[in-house]
Amino acid sequence: MSIEATLAEKGITLPDAPAPAANYVPFVRTGNLIFVSGQISAGEKGMIKGKLGDGLSVEDGAAAARRCGLALIAQLKSAIGDLDRVSRVVKLTGFVNSTPDFGDQPKVINGCSDLMVEVFGDAGRHARAAVSAPSLPFGVAVEIEAIFEVK
Amino acid sequence: MSIEATLAEKGITLPDAPAPAANYVPFVRTGNLIFVSGQISAGEKGMIKGKLGDGLSVEDGAAAARRCGLALIAQLKSAIGDLDRVSRVVKLTGFVNSTPDFGDQPKVINGCSDLMVEVFGDAGRHARAAVSAPSLPFGVAVEIEAIFEVK
Amino acid sequence: MSIEATLAEKGITLPDAPAPAANYVPFVRTGNLIFVSGQISAGEKGMIKGKLGDGLSVEDGAAAARRCGLALIAQLKSAIGDLDRVSRVVKLTGFVNSTPDFGDQPKVINGCSDLMVEVFGDAGRHARAAVSAPSLPFGVAVEIEAIFEVK
Repeated sequence: MSIEATLAEKGITLPDAPAPAANYVPFVRTGNLIFVSGQISAGEKGMIKGKLGDGLSVEDGAAAARRCGLALIAQLKSAIGDLDRVSRVVKLTGFVNSTPDFGDQPKVINGCSDLMVEVFGDAGRHARAAVSAPSLPFGVAVEIEAIFEVK
Repeated sequence: MSIEATLAEKGITLPDAPAPAANYVPFVRTGNLIFVSGQISAGEKGMIKGKLGDGLSVEDGAAAARRCGLALIAQLKSAIGDLDRVSRVVKLTGFVNSTPDFGDQPKVINGCSDLMVEVFGDAGRHARAAVSAPSLPFGVAVEIEAIFEVK
Repeated sequence: MSIEATLAEKGITLPDAPAPAANYVPFVRTGNLIFVSGQISAGEKGMIKGKLGDGLSVEDGAAAARRCGLALIAQLKSAIGDLDRVSRVVKLTGFVNSTPDFGDQPKVINGCSDLMVEVFGDAGRHARAAVSAPSLPFGVAVEIEAIFEVK
């Protein structure tokens, strides 16, 4: 089954892939690798803001991380056109906006990791780091960057 | 116009490219990629310290980020000799020393992103992540690492 | 001398290389590069928790970082079998769980950097970034991820 068919079957809709409003770009290809810029958590109604450990639950955080994952895939699609050309999700680095005593970064970033396997299957299994940040752009809850390998 | 001529025309002077005083190195080349170690903000009078959201303005932060960018280019030059061999600025990861309620990480790291495009033109447009850290080495305001692609 | 002989001579024992309990993997190979997931500080008696600047000393932190390095090498060994196939430690990114006024991230991450050179010699000299995080998974003191180049 193609990735597009998988997305349709699972009812997954990719968000728009907005261009950054600055001197950087959403992705760069070098060799077979595509580096996608950090995507901040945003839903259909705008940015998902807040801090884990102070108001946002782990479930809220995981949902925000999944949205980052959708944005990463949307940027990837705009980069390569056909998502079936993805041979591997190589690496995710996830930053969680949290208080100094929060310890569930892995469960939060799982929201993105699970999406990658849901969409790409075994090729979606990636290396990962999940850490906290004391704050993130515009007060969003999660920011995740990625490296993909393409055929 | 060569990169060196561009630097001269724009009046951009690269700082020294100091060697780390530990068991790591300023850069590693693997294939066509050069990974440059995180460069901390330092001006002609020494390190640029402070915290965004508590004393340092966004403009101060962007100026500190630009200094990190100059240090990255200086390290790159010491790595490859001739800056015209740079084919792409692939990726910047910028860490901003800030308070838990700061949200202008993108504007701060723009100080480095803008420099890359000023120096390398379209080849300077890069993938990027901009996040906060609760503290950075020696209390500096900004630390930025980079990946460059060379011919 | 082989890497295994070096480990034996120096009395360095690698820990187990546990599989993550989520939809990510300990390492991904792409081309000649191996991306190893962030390894959290853990000793023989379990996770090494705490915060630098609030109870943990720089020496404690460096010891925790060394444990992260042992875990990175253990994962690498499970990835490639023979550690003599490592041609270069390319990059370390170290995250230190610390208070907002901590400034000795480099000394902490040196615990891992020193280990890499102890084990791999000059091939162990790497590019590096060392920053703070306000908190890390399960409250651990240090998390470090790595990129290795193999023959």
